[in-house]
Amino acid sequence: MQRVGIGIFGFGVVGGGVIDVLRRERELIARRTGIDLELRAVVSLPPYRSSDVLGARLGEEPRLILEDPEIRIALLLVGGTTAARQLAHDCLRAGKHLVTSNKALIAEHGDELFAAARAAGVSIAFEAAVAGGIPIIGALRDGLCANQIRSLTAILNGTTNYILTMMEQHGWSYEQALREAQRLGYAEADPTLDVRGIDTAHKLAILARIAFHIQVPLAALRVEGIERVTAQDIASAARMRCRIKLLARAQVSGQDIDLHVAPTLVPLEHPLASVHMNYNGIYIESSNAGPQLYTGQGAGALPTASAVLADTVDVALGRSKQTFEAYGFVQNTTAWQCVGEREERTASYARFRVIDRPGVLASIAQVLSRKGISIRSIYQGEPQTGQADIELLTYPARGGDFLDAINEIDESAVTTAPTVCYRCLLP
Amino acid sequence: MQRVGIGIFGFGVVGGGVIDVLRRERELIARRTGIDLELRAVVSLPPYRSSDVLGARLGEEPRLILEDPEIRIALLLVGGTTAARQLAHDCLRAGKHLVTSNKALIAEHGDELFAAARAAGVSIAFEAAVAGGIPIIGALRDGLCANQIRSLTAILNGTTNYILTMMEQHGWSYEQALREAQRLGYAEADPTLDVRGIDTAHKLAILARIAFHIQVPLAALRVEGIERVTAQDIASAARMRCRIKLLARAQVSGQDIDLHVAPTLVPLEHPLASVHMNYNGIYIESSNAGPQLYTGQGAGALPTASAVLADTVDVALGRSKQTFEAYGFVQNTTAWQCVGEREERTASYARFRVIDRPGVLASIAQVLSRKGISIRSIYQGEPQTGQADIELLTYPARGGDFLDAINEIDESAVTTAPTVCYRCLLP
Repeated sequence: MQRVGIGIFGFGVVGGGVIDVLRRERELIARRTGIDLELRAVVSLPPYRSSDVLGARLGEEPRLILEDPEIRIALLLVGGTTAARQLAHDCLRAGKHLVTSNKALIAEHGDELFAAARAAGVSIAFEAAVAGGIPIIGALRDGLCANQIRSLTAILNGTTNYILTMMEQHGWSYEQALREAQRLGYAEADPTLDVRGIDTAHKLAILARIAFHIQVPLAALRVEGIERVTAQDIASAARMRCRIKLLARAQVSGQDIDLHVAPTLVPLEHPLASVHMNYNGIYIESSNAGPQLYTGQGAGALPTASAVLADTVDVALGRSKQTFEAYGFVQNTTAWQCVGEREERTASYARFRVIDRPGVLASIAQVLSRKGISIRSIYQGEPQTGQADIELLTYPARGGDFLDAINEIDESAVTTAPTVCYRCLLP
Repeated sequence: MQRVGIGIFGFGVVGGGVIDVLRRERELIARRTGIDLELRAVVSLPPYRSSDVLGARLGEEPRLILEDPEIRIALLLVGGTTAARQLAHDCLRAGKHLVTSNKALIAEHGDELFAAARAAGVSIAFEAAVAGGIPIIGALRDGLCANQIRSLTAILNGTTNYILTMMEQHGWSYEQALREAQRLGYAEADPTLDVRGIDTAHKLAILARIAFHIQVPLAALRVEGIERVTAQDIASAARMRCRIKLLARAQVSGQDIDLHVAPTLVPLEHPLASVHMNYNGIYIESSNAGPQLYTGQGAGALPTASAVLADTVDVALGRSKQTFEAYGFVQNTTAWQCVGEREERTASYARFRVIDRPGVLASIAQVLSRKGISIRSIYQGEPQTGQADIELLTYPARGGDFLDAINEIDESAVTTAPTVCYRCLLP
């Protein structure tokens, strides 16, 4: 049995969760792993949610952790990237290993922090930054180490998945579902980071680095949120036997990598279509292990605490350090070429609002055909007040060709409103 | 970079797969993990499937591995438990770490092998023995180390899952589906180990040891196969919005643990209902991380090789050794009480073949009610030639009460054939 001193920065939801789990499971963890985690200090600004910190010191002075030689691992459980970044550097400089749940910090400042950690001879672990309690970073790093990852398709944000699930199940508008998510605490008062896909993009950047050894500047990610998704879109997707999900996607073809976040039609048969509510799901295609799916709760105090403590044990055992190089954070990145939207190959959904007159469908089909876009399936409902909606799914095609076709159709006199388009996960 | 010598026992499907993957991914593995795996010997009885063994020595003499001081890790990729057991002991005695895909060996002789490994100061790793390329042992051991596992429900045998999927999708009989599985190589000429649930039981025993630190004598597992499943059962399950899956189940309640393998009705909404064909799926409920599902290919040369090589790296890095104690193989097992069939609490399905006359349904309902069994839903189709089938689902109840009720009904003059019963995964 090895006793390992730890300190926690941040006594919010995650910090509180880690203390709760440590209270209940410290002995189990020790029995299983041989590591006895001793919480020695909790640093946070008052007021404190509780004074029960398992006998540790509680205060607002970072030195409670930084200057305690018995603390080997600092758990950085605060959000944001300003104070957190400074604290992270302070910890590394003080020779403390770092475990964090802060995805923005790793996605935006990973390179600089990993360089600092290497210089200080310590590790950084961040399983909790992606997909909560699902050990997906461990799976990519260890379990799939003998595989080239071909593609990674994931639902990584519980808030938006909850909103989309509610819209589908109750026929609600986006605004209604968002309000309900806020009322239940699944969405924050300012939901921007979630609904605009930024949180998902942070997580995709982190996963892509581990899966593909690629250093992804956030600006290179194409990111779309769910704010434009309407109840009609959801109903129309259902008619096409699909569900709309906010997907993070990394797909490799030769030296090209397509990285994007976008609301996407997922066929009902695809395993990700069944990932509902606030759950996360990661679908991985790899060279030897074949397709795999990992699902679970992607956020919340306890799932996140579960990942933070698994990481803490990992670091205490020295396992994290041994494969630290593998993250590729501070190594030369492989010469990947990021694919732009026009070069991306994807199946698509389009809904045209058209004047109900003969020849309209033919002229749409003609434009698509001229651009090399094949129609997979098509639906037209009863016209109302002289207008009709034509909905279709295409086979995969070059993004630029599809967009050009849609533009050409919208610029003709055929459609009466901008055409609604989504990517579709059909092969 | 650390060069690690390895030797392979067995040049069959799995051994060949490991060599293939090593040929393609050796450099990737080294770049990611810092471990350069050098294959130095392959030991197998001739004739050999190929002479391309990456420059290693190829022969039938175990000493090619046992006496090569450069070989630190032996990959034991042969089936059966007689020769494999002897080879395993020889390897451990020679101070070689052991990586194996042989589930029967670990399930039946785990205790003795782990004791020998401990005495020799080496490790045994066996991720490949359960669920092929899905890193489920790593997830339980590392990713979920801060969680009490509450239940584990899994599809662990691709052959039977393929047979059940074909029966459902094509309306085939069990015999038809088995023949097709044999024709495609998914089932062996002698399918006993698969279809009787024995292979699944071996894997459940291994998972239960890691999840619950319980030493499971195989005889303590209640095991049923899929041979009795009929096309009518599958159709009837579909009418109840369920699919029949061969489930391995470990469920904890206080100090009681229920361990069994049985064909079970899985509600369509349950994540395991969507695990089709030759895929495996593991559904885990734990104290902090919440419900999680892992799915992927559970067998085959490449998925198994992926797991074997991940284990090999794990051992080479010393990670496996560090948590070796955690497996609980040779420790005192916690004082679990194995639950018998009569004490098990489960929802159930029953189909009664009855004479079509007034009062029959009432008398069945009466017996169930007297035994404390609540009916959740019921279906009766059109009677044919004076007989009818009454199908029902119950709420969870004590197994003994349910069986008593069925016996009493079958012994009365009400039914004309033995009643067909299955467990159902409804809560």
